[in-house]
Amino acid sequence: MPIKEAVRPGGRSARVQEAVHQAVRELQAVKSRDELTVPQVAEHAGVTPSTIYRRWGNLAELVADVSVERMRPDDDPVDTGTLAGDLQAWGEQYLEEMTSVPGQRALNDVMASAENGRRERCCHYSESLMATLRERALSRGEAAVPSLDRLVDGVVAPMTYRLLYDRESATAANLRRWIARALAVEDVD
Amino acid sequence: MPIKEAVRPGGRSARVQEAVHQAVRELQAVKSRDELTVPQVAEHAGVTPSTIYRRWGNLAELVADVSVERMRPDDDPVDTGTLAGDLQAWGEQYLEEMTSVPGQRALNDVMASAENGRRERCCHYSESLMATLRERALSRGEAAVPSLDRLVDGVVAPMTYRLLYDRESATAANLRRWIARALAVEDVD
Repeated sequence: MPIKEAVRPGGRSARVQEAVHQAVRELQAVKSRDELTVPQVAEHAGVTPSTIYRRWGNLAELVADVSVERMRPDDDPVDTGTLAGDLQAWGEQYLEEMTSVPGQRALNDVMASAENGRRERCCHYSESLMATLRERALSRGEAAVPSLDRLVDGVVAPMTYRLLYDRESATAANLRRWIARALAVEDVD
Repeated sequence: MPIKEAVRPGGRSARVQEAVHQAVRELQAVKSRDELTVPQVAEHAGVTPSTIYRRWGNLAELVADVSVERMRPDDDPVDTGTLAGDLQAWGEQYLEEMTSVPGQRALNDVMASAENGRRERCCHYSESLMATLRERALSRGEAAVPSLDRLVDGVVAPMTYRLLYDRESATAANLRRWIARALAVEDVD
């Protein structure tokens, strides 16, 4: 499930995007959100403010765009030798990232974005990662590898739900339970 | 799990809230979102704009507040005679509401709210409903009633995840599958 990107890699458009994203990340590291402005980001990135307005519309959408990138998983997730282990290793890292202050801010930025497409990109990232781990399990010859839907509904959905609505229970112990259930259940379709 | 409300029912504060919420609902029925303004809502509700700014901060937060109320479930959900039936009846109604245009708008309003408390109220609504249905199943003497966490992770989480990120799969058929899985699984804790 390849992630479709609107921006052709290597083109001028991609270079502008990278410079602007980089500027946001650097400024976010030293400034609070309320201090950030489009002209500042533009100056730091070496582009005009109108380039930013034309492409992203406003600061909130630009920041959401940068935050989505933050959620892009590693191309090559840790191989622990079992699907359960791989899911746990990926999930613990993701929960740690997303319960951190910058992670929570990124999550809020994305949810506040008026563009559904951004939320959907996050969803595709997780699904694409589930697909990778699933393929790996199949090629190892593991028994009873759940369907992709089952992994999304059983592992990604409760992680996301708890991160959004009930952060206290977005824990490694609960993750272990979600994974065990997703792998244990007989499919009842 | 009672919902803690900031506003004492029957007091002046509650009456103002009800009048302002009512004004938003009435204006939303005849105007598009972009046309809505705080002075308009204030006039329609018979309060001053500063009352609204003081209490809600801005239009986005007011609208999110009204939208959260939209998600409050019925106090007395349909009794079909089984937990699976009750979950399906409630869930189908919820999915129908939340995939409608006003429902999607309400969901977006709530997600865009800067106040985590609003998102958490939605979460409490669903959890409180799960608790009600679960109690009912226990008092009927149904066998193998899952834990509250199991119902939230197994039914509410995938419903919410699909509604937010992948609306196409927020269907009654998938709901049936989530419920069957949540009721079938042996707890692996």
